[in-house]
Amino acid sequence: MFTPQPIGFVHSLFKDAAAIPKGLGAKHPEAGVLEILPAFVAGLTDIEGYSHLIVLWAFDRSEGFDLIVTPPSDDRPHGLFTTRSPRRPNPIALTVVELLRREGALLHVRGVDMLDGTPILDIKPYLSNIPEEKLRRGWLAEAEARQS
Amino acid sequence: MFTPQPIGFVHSLFKDAAAIPKGLGAKHPEAGVLEILPAFVAGLTDIEGYSHLIVLWAFDRSEGFDLIVTPPSDDRPHGLFTTRSPRRPNPIALTVVELLRREGALLHVRGVDMLDGTPILDIKPYLSNIPEEKLRRGWLAEAEARQS
Repeated sequence: MFTPQPIGFVHSLFKDAAAIPKGLGAKHPEAGVLEILPAFVAGLTDIEGYSHLIVLWAFDRSEGFDLIVTPPSDDRPHGLFTTRSPRRPNPIALTVVELLRREGALLHVRGVDMLDGTPILDIKPYLSNIPEEKLRRGWLAEAEARQS
Repeated sequence: MFTPQPIGFVHSLFKDAAAIPKGLGAKHPEAGVLEILPAFVAGLTDIEGYSHLIVLWAFDRSEGFDLIVTPPSDDRPHGLFTTRSPRRPNPIALTVVELLRREGALLHVRGVDMLDGTPILDIKPYLSNIPEEKLRRGWLAEAEARQS
């Protein structure tokens, strides 16, 4: 396997996990900045053409994992791999952000749900959607239906 | 940081990278199996309710990285982080697959673009799309337009 290394860090308003909106209908309209380390900035070439980016980052303040979790969006337990819980065998997180603008090594983005100082592992272009009519969202859809 | 560990392995028809469709309009209709290791199977509870899964996996047969790459889908060079190149600072790949059925530790899926034996790092539920009218796909859209 490989040894994870940060390609940059997140600048965010969130200083602790309790401040990040969670649960059903949680929105993440917050803007933030992805600061890419000088050694990797050339890899951002042409990124301005993309509206949305997939950011992989490390849950660097999480330890251990649980295979069954009760997520903030439901009062029932579910399998870890159907949730976004930070406590995972490989503590890798994924956030899709909207790219607002680039300023050299800085990507100004919207949709930040990371803590300030979070290490970024990778950035990939967001290229395509799953057709809505084919998408089933399991227990989350059920939890939403119970609430409405 | 963390030490990556496989939570399972991919069973796929692809024995070498040259066999995997690449480039503009490449489709990945192939079915395959994600075999989750016994220690992690409980984390699959309730996964049958989801039609699509995000699979994070390791480019375990890739070494080193290039910050500027000419991808199979274009004849022009682009920044690494606008591409899906396997040669990345953190060789983590992402594939969205359709879940066909679960059989214990085996997830039968469609949309496989991994080599046989690829280590799986994480599985997450696919929950939402980006509105099509907001999605811009940079150089890839330009390359498609030039070809058509």
